[in-house]
Amino acid sequence: MNVQQIPNWLKQRAYLTPDRPAIKSNGVWVTFQELHQRVLHRANQLATLGVKKEDRVGLLMKNSFDMVIMVHALMYSGAVNVLLNNRLTSSELMWQIRDVSASYIFCDDSLEGEIHKLEAIDVVTHSELLSTIAADTCTIVQEFASDSVATIMYTSGTTGHPKGVLQTYGNHLWSAMGSALNLGLHSDDRWLATVPLFHISGFSILMKNVIYGMGIVLHEKFEAKQANRAITEDKVTIVSVVTTMLNQMLSELGSSSYPEHFRCMLLGGGPAPKTILEQCRDKKIPVFQTYGMTETSSQIVTLSADYSLEKLGSAGKPLFPCQLSIKKDQKLSAAFEEGEIVVKGPNVTIGYWNRNDATLESIKDSWLYTGDLGYLDDEGFLYVLDRRSDLIISGGENVYPAEIEGILMSHPAVTEAGVVGITDDRWGQVPFAFVVANKSISEGELLDFCKGKLATYKVPKAIKFEKVLPRNASNKLLRRKLKELIEEGHHND
Amino acid sequence: MNVQQIPNWLKQRAYLTPDRPAIKSNGVWVTFQELHQRVLHRANQLATLGVKKEDRVGLLMKNSFDMVIMVHALMYSGAVNVLLNNRLTSSELMWQIRDVSASYIFCDDSLEGEIHKLEAIDVVTHSELLSTIAADTCTIVQEFASDSVATIMYTSGTTGHPKGVLQTYGNHLWSAMGSALNLGLHSDDRWLATVPLFHISGFSILMKNVIYGMGIVLHEKFEAKQANRAITEDKVTIVSVVTTMLNQMLSELGSSSYPEHFRCMLLGGGPAPKTILEQCRDKKIPVFQTYGMTETSSQIVTLSADYSLEKLGSAGKPLFPCQLSIKKDQKLSAAFEEGEIVVKGPNVTIGYWNRNDATLESIKDSWLYTGDLGYLDDEGFLYVLDRRSDLIISGGENVYPAEIEGILMSHPAVTEAGVVGITDDRWGQVPFAFVVANKSISEGELLDFCKGKLATYKVPKAIKFEKVLPRNASNKLLRRKLKELIEEGHHND
Repeated sequence: MNVQQIPNWLKQRAYLTPDRPAIKSNGVWVTFQELHQRVLHRANQLATLGVKKEDRVGLLMKNSFDMVIMVHALMYSGAVNVLLNNRLTSSELMWQIRDVSASYIFCDDSLEGEIHKLEAIDVVTHSELLSTIAADTCTIVQEFASDSVATIMYTSGTTGHPKGVLQTYGNHLWSAMGSALNLGLHSDDRWLATVPLFHISGFSILMKNVIYGMGIVLHEKFEAKQANRAITEDKVTIVSVVTTMLNQMLSELGSSSYPEHFRCMLLGGGPAPKTILEQCRDKKIPVFQTYGMTETSSQIVTLSADYSLEKLGSAGKPLFPCQLSIKKDQKLSAAFEEGEIVVKGPNVTIGYWNRNDATLESIKDSWLYTGDLGYLDDEGFLYVLDRRSDLIISGGENVYPAEIEGILMSHPAVTEAGVVGITDDRWGQVPFAFVVANKSISEGELLDFCKGKLATYKVPKAIKFEKVLPRNASNKLLRRKLKELIEEGHHND
Repeated sequence: MNVQQIPNWLKQRAYLTPDRPAIKSNGVWVTFQELHQRVLHRANQLATLGVKKEDRVGLLMKNSFDMVIMVHALMYSGAVNVLLNNRLTSSELMWQIRDVSASYIFCDDSLEGEIHKLEAIDVVTHSELLSTIAADTCTIVQEFASDSVATIMYTSGTTGHPKGVLQTYGNHLWSAMGSALNLGLHSDDRWLATVPLFHISGFSILMKNVIYGMGIVLHEKFEAKQANRAITEDKVTIVSVVTTMLNQMLSELGSSSYPEHFRCMLLGGGPAPKTILEQCRDKKIPVFQTYGMTETSSQIVTLSADYSLEKLGSAGKPLFPCQLSIKKDQKLSAAFEEGEIVVKGPNVTIGYWNRNDATLESIKDSWLYTGDLGYLDDEGFLYVLDRRSDLIISGGENVYPAEIEGILMSHPAVTEAGVVGITDDRWGQVPFAFVVANKSISEGELLDFCKGKLATYKVPKAIKFEKVLPRNASNKLLRRKLKELIEEGHHND
């Protein structure tokens, strides 16, 4: 009785508010009823191909109306959406596809080349899918059970292989509800999605779309001018951004300002610099900074616009259904005392796919140990000190030093590698590598080596050769000391 | 893992939005932080008195700030709020208090006389409570589990004794969320509560208060002029009403209209007459008609204002998390086909207190069989034909004919009794009785007999003596035929 059975979200929307505009994509609005009809047809095509309940199905697609249809069609079929990051290299992708034991991969025609043919996995391109006949007897899922897994998104940990985060229907539903309790919900709300749908930041907009019955405007990719135009012309009221995007939108906006109806910049990926917040204050742009991760199915802590300058650098307070603690040595930290950020809530993942070890390590007594460091002030506002110790956030993408170090060390000439983030005007941060080599090799050769194996945004901006890397007594790499090396380097410039 | 643990609602509000206005009562606003402090103190007083987790505690109070404090203080203590209808007679109340095995009754001083002293029940008046010293070691509940019982409200069935409806924390939370998804949620929202807090209509406003972090204006009782004044002067945006209240507000309003910020009349207790809806349309008052019951923890079906005239007489469509069916002979009815209204959703009760029989009869496979008759049109809009077959709704109160018939038949002179509702200008409906007597007795004597045993609003407006009552082959009273008798009587006038 405790598992909530909520009616199939999009189908319910098509029943409750059939004629409301649902999605604008490529200049055209479709209603919830039209979207439902398209998804129903797609679900019938999937049935022809043999997609079954609980199949894990990979989606390797760029932001598009078709991707939206695929996401819902898989939900209608009862299959699990495995959202694949299309910026990854072929070998990174294949690792995830094998790990999740996907039955099918649906991909954009342009991305087919990234997938190696494997037995037991059907790879279906978009044009193949379009020519598939629709079965007329597809049994669609009528109710979404709160504890069923809806999606899997891979996230790299600080060490080792990426892990598939399990997100249930309940997780997505509560994420949307928690956000509505925080930001409110207006009948004229429209949300702009320019962030990738394969990330939780974009995906959560698709969920709000059907749960709220709210129109969304979907862009294939972020382009500041188009984003600003969507606010003015498409009457967008809320936009999800990271700092680098907000920055570009502000400069593109120039001396103009946004119309009255615009009510929220939802800013993820770390706190914004003061100068940007001041610009936004002067232009009356409400910025809601957030802290969240794939494991919390989007934001879990938010700083309301009223506090953005007063509590500069803070990530805010938890969403209504959520809780937040700082823990050190298994004890709760006092105000201003640093420790690990620990969170709880109905939007928090039930664990990692096929990784019981990692699940048990991260989730204890329903609390998620984020690995991030931070503290609470005396009013309970969160300040994040270090994301996952050494996480680099580059243009909104998480980059894990350990992953890049692993690739560098796989080169025969490299014996040690250390990677840290350095600030970058365009991307916020970019990775910078330190290497100890056992024979002569150039920076260019090593960078080329990385490019074949790492997504472009993970390839170090530069590589510096060292005789030895700073380590502590137990031989653990001290990445903070590497940062100091860079800062010293800058001083010496 | 499926039971959601949501942080103690008011306490969380006092953390997230401490300075926001929470409740205006007797002309004074208190913030969420102040409310929390008052409730904390009260919970400590309850601890002194010995109130424990899972105790069932009766509240016999009139709408007041103190009642709000008691409701939350019992939640802080982990006790179950048993909301007693202060319009009931002493014997009706005592039946419920015995049935629920209450450990404590907290009552207004003025209502103490209604409670007979019983062993094993502590009766505490408000002034006794105020002089109780607060314990300093009260352990307050930090998280509300979605499957824990928060409240019990008694409702009379079509036959037999009243039943205690169990409403969980999850029920109240989902009721609030479902309503927000339907009506939206604005940062300037203020809800006016003039309906009784012991009913789900009023109680659900208290829950929205803390879940949304929305201000409410509390009136001790409904008074049209004060209600209109709250809309204009206290900037109320939403009011819960029944038709008779709306009617009075409209006549009091005269040729004036409501300010722009007012956005919703949430109308319960049956569909509104066309003339009222037309008046509201002309005055640009958005009326959202709803269908709901104690068992659904407030509304479950709502007709949005856009459809109030187009779909005249309809109760609308379900809230987003809810489902609705019409069933006859265990089969789903087609469009326009009459049957029993069956509903499902996370706001639906888990059952009746200590009445497994009634629970099993009403809830099958998570669907609640409401006993109400209705049909869906071809777009899925609900039309309610008969509430619980013969339910009379008088000024927003449910009046069950079977209960009044039982009282009438307990008189030695009465062998048969039948009660139906007749339309009434002030209350919408009032009960009207037909009686077969075995010796001479006057209408006045029988009415006096009723007054001692039934709440005033349940006492029949008139009693008519008959030689025989219309019954079907299996001897079941045909209340519809009684209605025809009245209509014939009117024709003969």
